[in-house]
Amino acid sequence: MEKIGLLAGVGRLPVEFARAARGMGFGVIAVAVVPEVDEELQQVADKTVQLNIGELDRVIRVLKEEGVSQVTMLGKVTKELLFSGSVRLDDRLQRMFAALPDNRDDTIMLGLVRELASEGIGVFDQTAFIRSLMPAPAILTKREPSAAERADMEFGFNMAKAIGGLDIGQTVVVKNLAVMAVEAIEGTDACILRGGRLSCGGATVVKAAKPDQDLRFDVPAVGVNTIRAMCEAQAKALAIEAGKTLLVDRDKVIKIADECGITIVAM
Amino acid sequence: MEKIGLLAGVGRLPVEFARAARGMGFGVIAVAVVPEVDEELQQVADKTVQLNIGELDRVIRVLKEEGVSQVTMLGKVTKELLFSGSVRLDDRLQRMFAALPDNRDDTIMLGLVRELASEGIGVFDQTAFIRSLMPAPAILTKREPSAAERADMEFGFNMAKAIGGLDIGQTVVVKNLAVMAVEAIEGTDACILRGGRLSCGGATVVKAAKPDQDLRFDVPAVGVNTIRAMCEAQAKALAIEAGKTLLVDRDKVIKIADECGITIVAM
Repeated sequence: MEKIGLLAGVGRLPVEFARAARGMGFGVIAVAVVPEVDEELQQVADKTVQLNIGELDRVIRVLKEEGVSQVTMLGKVTKELLFSGSVRLDDRLQRMFAALPDNRDDTIMLGLVRELASEGIGVFDQTAFIRSLMPAPAILTKREPSAAERADMEFGFNMAKAIGGLDIGQTVVVKNLAVMAVEAIEGTDACILRGGRLSCGGATVVKAAKPDQDLRFDVPAVGVNTIRAMCEAQAKALAIEAGKTLLVDRDKVIKIADECGITIVAM
Repeated sequence: MEKIGLLAGVGRLPVEFARAARGMGFGVIAVAVVPEVDEELQQVADKTVQLNIGELDRVIRVLKEEGVSQVTMLGKVTKELLFSGSVRLDDRLQRMFAALPDNRDDTIMLGLVRELASEGIGVFDQTAFIRSLMPAPAILTKREPSAAERADMEFGFNMAKAIGGLDIGQTVVVKNLAVMAVEAIEGTDACILRGGRLSCGGATVVKAAKPDQDLRFDVPAVGVNTIRAMCEAQAKALAIEAGKTLLVDRDKVIKIADECGITIVAM
């Protein structure tokens, strides 16, 4: 049985991946790199090791001991960790960061990919086993978008692409063809809550892939938390990029959206 | 004596303008379009009329009655007003908004310029009488930026230009060559406070003009509030675009910055 590695952050994606990969006959060695990974991960992976995102040397050692030469990185690891100073970086990571030209998401992730590659460990496409989670173009909810919401989705999509092109973030909140909030490192939920408040209800949230999306990391994903934040913010429409966004817990997401009168479009 | 009009929002800029224009021998008819304009405006303008930003027809009527055919628009009028629904728009403004292709800042302002032009009222350069407030390239404070702050200023400048090119906002908060916060409609101070919190201290704030800055509106400005927000956020460096940013209350700004250990660079 071929073993593959899973560097796991927060949320349901690592669980979905582990289940899918095992279903395809792979052994899954999960390395939880933050404390709050989904509890179910332990049940679905063949082995789960709890480490810390700052301990790159130990992460690599574990992967090698397990005979893993291919890993994927899935689940949320907030970049705030890096700036809060609450995570101790080992010497290897400190050297890596010191050599980076900047600290944009892609720059950091490519730095990690290179470190792993130098140890003979390849990083593969986050969507490899879970491409079925990416919706094709469709209206996913009971409610269809209004003409105004459609216009906000188009407008927001162009803005989200441009922001993604700068590698700042993936999410924008829009209302009446004006940008209410842009996501930087605060994360999607905080961006939605802020944009919702500034819109006084009726905002549209748009999440899009970067123009040159590297499928090995940062593939846009939405799930239950996204919709819960939208409900709280009284945002009424969500657009995601069809074929390029992972929709996790789809049935639950759509159920909550329908209850809140939110329309979701994969466009 | 030639009369010129001043559509005045919040802050010191309208006062600075009125004083400078009167010093050049112009009569200044100020129309306060929000309730909280600086109290001193009444003393320095020849006449001050309090109206509401939503009453475009009345604003135009006043300007015409006063024989004003040239106005400038200065001072903060937050776009949040528009989305909060707390301002009633008169029929004329409602028609104007209905005809706009989107609600980005420039789109709205150009709409206003056209409305005024259709009544024979020209809008002129915000900086016409106050160009002296725009610093040339220099380090303005006692403390010079560190190498890391300089790098963040360069990085942030490029980001701020790009965000401005999308007409989203003028301010970005940066730390360690990563974007912490992007300004949309929340305003500069809220953006600084958020970015500062996410950076856990030591952030750099960058404010730049749009690539195609229209000098009739939205010329970037910083003043005492900007620096106070930076002190509160423990942000340590401010970069503004030299020759394109209005620095209001310069002496006070630099005094507070020096007290807080903030470095300010016009670049």
